[in-house]
Parts: sequence; structure tokens; C-alpha cells
Amino acid sequence: MEIFFRYNWMVREQWYAWCEEVSYDELIRQRTGGVGNILQTLFHIADVEWSWIRLLQGKEDFQEDFEEYKTLEKVRGLDSQFRTEVQKFVESWDDSMENRPLYDLQSDGTLAIDTWGEVMRHIIAHQIHHMGQLSVWSREIGKKPVSANVIGKGLMKPDLP
Amino acid sequence: MEIFFRYNWMVREQWYAWCEEVSYDELIRQRTGGVGNILQTLFHIADVEWSWIRLLQGKEDFQEDFEEYKTLEKVRGLDSQFRTEVQKFVESWDDSMENRPLYDLQSDGTLAIDTWGEVMRHIIAHQIHHMGQLSVWSREIGKKPVSANVIGKGLMKPDLP
Repeated sequence: MEIFFRYNWMVREQWYAWCEEVSYDELIRQRTGGVGNILQTLFHIADVEWSWIRLLQGKEDFQEDFEEYKTLEKVRGLDSQFRTEVQKFVESWDDSMENRPLYDLQSDGTLAIDTWGEVMRHIIAHQIHHMGQLSVWSREIGKKPVSANVIGKGLMKPDLP
Repeated sequence: MEIFFRYNWMVREQWYAWCEEVSYDELIRQRTGGVGNILQTLFHIADVEWSWIRLLQGKEDFQEDFEEYKTLEKVRGLDSQFRTEVQKFVESWDDSMENRPLYDLQSDGTLAIDTWGEVMRHIIAHQIHHMGQLSVWSREIGKKPVSANVIGKGLMKPDLP
């Protein structure tokens, strides 16, 4: 589980660096699909990751408003503020947590039961999905997107003879 | 590991069903980003998944040519042909395989060493990334994309009291 989170954090940092070379107008320009602009996508990824980790811990979440974080610096700051808590939780993850139930009251009043393992994978896939969207928008503005490769990032050590 | 593969296969089937409701012209229309069109993205996902699984097994790969598989039926057929082998491998996965080295000769002559665990995660992230691209293209043609949610798909059974 941790390997995928480390991958996501690494790629997210690379997208932040990518943003530094793009004008602010492009970062907040309205686009088709996803949450509608590049900066808000990064905000959304950090927010959703942290919110689910809060939920798993039975802690209170509060809805961050993008209007308050509308610069690259503020999004990065929020992300790094969240990261401490998220990372601690991810590092304490063990397989015995996989099938623990999370009761999630839906807006229609029904009760969904997810497992903690599903929620963790949901967080992982959520970022990768949104970064796929960023890659299209990146090409739209004529810029090479950040690579989505998992291999070649030194995430794991091979057993060598 | 298997949970993420089951998720990917499920979502892929949903994209195939989504394609049935879209005209052929839209499926092969040239678009910005990724591999450039919807049908070829699905072809590419199935091809890349299978090719890596072949590599891990030390089996021969051959380069499929999209020109030969340019209909939804043919892509689905190829995917289902590959699936048998991929699924067998995924189901036989155990943690002892995580750090096994895969020696991968690069086009520049250098030798990269990946772990099997990185390769498996690479396959998983590869699909999710490309489906993020499909979701943007889907909105471009005014259609709701397939959900990328991991939760709510019944992928795992919660431990209930």
C-alpha cells in the first residue's frame, strides 16, 4: 500500500514543479472534464486524500474551499500540512486493517459499507485518474506532461544475487 | 494486488459498454494527449498489460498493431484472449515475488532493473492513468464518463461484527 502512496506523492511533487513553469492563467483556466482546472485538480487530490484518511481515523473533516487556496503556493502549503497526518497513517498500515468496515452515510440516507482496504485503494486510484486528466490538459497547452511511470522511480529494491 | 486488477478489469468492461453507445467516428477521432483516440487507448491498455505479464514470465512478446484491431469487437476479442493468461498470473501472485528483479534492456543500450512488484503496480497505474484521459475526452463529446471509484464496487468483503 505504502509503495503506491510514495509513488503518488512523488508524482504530485513533479506536477507542482511542472506548474512552476506554467502561467497562472493556464493553471486556473477552465477546461473540459474533471474538476475543471489544473490547480483545483491538485487541490482536490490533496483534499480528498486527507479527508478519507480523517474518516478512517474517525476524525472530523472540514470542507476546504478552493477559493481560499487559489495559488500554487497555498495548495502546496495545504498539501504539506495534510501530509504529516496522512503519511503517519499510511506508514502504520498493516494487512489486518484491510477488511475493517467503514460506515459511510450517503446523501440519499442509505448506509454504504466500504472496507478500509477499498478506501485506501480509492485514494490511490483517485489521484492517478486525475493526473491522467492533467496529462491531456498539459498537451493542450503544448507542454509535456509528468510521466505516470511507476517503474524507474526507485520505489522498491530488487533482490539481487 | 489482485484487488486492483479486478478493479481495472471491471472498469475496462464498463468502458467497453460505454463505447457501444458512441459512434465509431468518435471512437477513432484524433484527440489531444495520450495515444490519441479512444479505441486505441483501450487497445493499448490491454496490450501493455499483457506484454508486461509476458515479460515477467520470460515469455516472448509480439508487438500488436492497432491497424489490425480497429473495431470495438476486435479490441474486446484481443483483450479477452490475453485475459486468460494475465488472470492466471495475477491469481498466482504472492508477496515473495515483490522484489524479484526484472532486467529490462533499454533502447539506449543500458540495463534497467525493475522489481516485479513495481511492474505489477506499473500495469495497474497505467490503465487508471489512461482512463483519466478517456474521462476528459468523454466530456468533450458530451457524455458522462465511467466512474473511477474503487469504493462501491463490492471488491472486498468487510469484516462485520
